[in-house]
Amino acid sequence: MNAAQLGQFYRGYLVCLNAQDWAQLGQYVHDEASHNGRRFGLAGYQAMLEKDFAQIPDLHFNIALAVYEPPNIAARLAFDCSPAGMFLGLAVNGKRVRFAEHVFYELRDEKIWQAWSLIDTAAIAAQI
Amino acid sequence: MNAAQLGQFYRGYLVCLNAQDWAQLGQYVHDEASHNGRRFGLAGYQAMLEKDFAQIPDLHFNIALAVYEPPNIAARLAFDCSPAGMFLGLAVNGKRVRFAEHVFYELRDEKIWQAWSLIDTAAIAAQI
Repeated sequence: MNAAQLGQFYRGYLVCLNAQDWAQLGQYVHDEASHNGRRFGLAGYQAMLEKDFAQIPDLHFNIALAVYEPPNIAARLAFDCSPAGMFLGLAVNGKRVRFAEHVFYELRDEKIWQAWSLIDTAAIAAQI
Repeated sequence: MNAAQLGQFYRGYLVCLNAQDWAQLGQYVHDEASHNGRRFGLAGYQAMLEKDFAQIPDLHFNIALAVYEPPNIAARLAFDCSPAGMFLGLAVNGKRVRFAEHVFYELRDEKIWQAWSLIDTAAIAAQI
């Protein structure tokens, strides 16, 4: 995949997430995917995402900035949502919060194989 | 600059930081640079870096992963250092800690014009 194809792939991946279309997730995520060094595999990766949507009923992934250079994608994601109860150790309790995630993906076999993510928890803490 | 030139530029920028060679910083950082939405300008950007080195005497910038797509750079930086006293609200007090930073740079006029950075404070907290 070239940079333009990576962009198409990544936007398709986020459409899949936002639709919670788990039947399609295997088109985007490798069977041996890992996340922040945890070797989840596809099933574990899906379970992580399902948990995210359970914690944050109005979760929506939005690209603020994306950088594509095969075989890597880097994205600054912008969230505007209302996590229920505790979220990342913070008592958000349904309050609407805006925060960023910075995530790096390494692709293998044209699928997400490794992801490294950091979330701006300080911004969330400052809003609750 | 193409992707290869961006890589050369970025590695040169980190050499400059690691040498604390502030006389050269203006080759890499725009006069109107901003960092996490704060419009620092070159002088304020340098002051931020000088403060970082004052807080962390053994600070060294290392690239774990970098993604280059003009006019943007995204980098996962790996730190292994010993912040003195308080660091990002945490009482590190000289303990050696390892953590990542995920940073996005947008270049203008072939210099860093906007930077958006997140630091893995949870990893630091878990090590002290």
